[in-house]
Amino acid sequence: MVGCSLAFFVSFFALSAIALASHCSITGLPLVRNISEIPQDNYGRAGLSHITIAGSVMHGMREVEVWLQTFSPGSHTPIHRHSCEEVFIVLKGSGTLYLASDSHGRYPGKPQEHSIFSNSTFHIPVNDAHQLWNTNNHEDLQVLVIISRPPVKVFIYEDWSMPHTAARLKFPYYWDEQCFQAPPRDEL
Amino acid sequence: MVGCSLAFFVSFFALSAIALASHCSITGLPLVRNISEIPQDNYGRAGLSHITIAGSVMHGMREVEVWLQTFSPGSHTPIHRHSCEEVFIVLKGSGTLYLASDSHGRYPGKPQEHSIFSNSTFHIPVNDAHQLWNTNNHEDLQVLVIISRPPVKVFIYEDWSMPHTAARLKFPYYWDEQCFQAPPRDEL
Repeated sequence: MVGCSLAFFVSFFALSAIALASHCSITGLPLVRNISEIPQDNYGRAGLSHITIAGSVMHGMREVEVWLQTFSPGSHTPIHRHSCEEVFIVLKGSGTLYLASDSHGRYPGKPQEHSIFSNSTFHIPVNDAHQLWNTNNHEDLQVLVIISRPPVKVFIYEDWSMPHTAARLKFPYYWDEQCFQAPPRDEL
Repeated sequence: MVGCSLAFFVSFFALSAIALASHCSITGLPLVRNISEIPQDNYGRAGLSHITIAGSVMHGMREVEVWLQTFSPGSHTPIHRHSCEEVFIVLKGSGTLYLASDSHGRYPGKPQEHSIFSNSTFHIPVNDAHQLWNTNNHEDLQVLVIISRPPVKVFIYEDWSMPHTAARLKFPYYWDEQCFQAPPRDEL
């Protein structure tokens, strides 16, 4: 009985490892993928649906990454910054971009508010603190997000007056945590 | 009368220069832009509509670029390669991706054919020769294109058996020609 249970657990963990490996590796994935069949998750963030369309950790991208994200009414990103370029395309819904462009101050300060709407595009200057918010009570906000220099390394602020130096690094980011493996160190 | 004509021509060219400058510079552009209002052009390529959603030459992007392209039935890209990453998202229609993955040969060789369809995604490995073709007679093919390391530097092949070394560099590419200015040389 113990042997049987052990065999069960060994098989269970072996299968889990295979499942994890296939979820986290491009090996075996078709070149052309149906976006509707790519796994989505909220990664513990209320109101979010995130799909990695093309990712560094999941698909071996080295220079760009593409996400499809849906925010339910009232949901939002944290206030954050990152030293990469980021382009948004709004596919559905509307909302507000809060952007603090003065990266020379000690803290982000009061952000500018920009209305975003279906079929609009905007990009976030490198290292500017920002927050995206679905401020439309009646509709989901769906955006395509493109970032450079993946995987993304995000510094998170609790509020707009938190000093830049106190912002907390979140790396690997939520959707990369499961699959991220630190690259081998090149020790010459 | 001559003076009047001269004044007219001076004004005309001055206005043209201002128009060109504003078309080619992010200065004065709103942060959030309506994609429907971004200029589209075919840049002399039959059956193509190209919109630069976020571009290096037009909008000052340094690490990523995003295009919206529509191919009428039967229209296609040239056979080409580039040493950047490229991600496609098919928004409408269907077609065929031709991809020659053996970059170690002397020439691309017979490509693999991949069906692409609405709501699909795929990426082109760096330096693999490829061609996108709207092989659907009944519908436009519309794609979002994301590239890294802009502005794009494309090597064009006349056919799949043209040696890699004979492929012709097209730089700046069609949509960058009007606004491209060689960066100042840093002579220390």
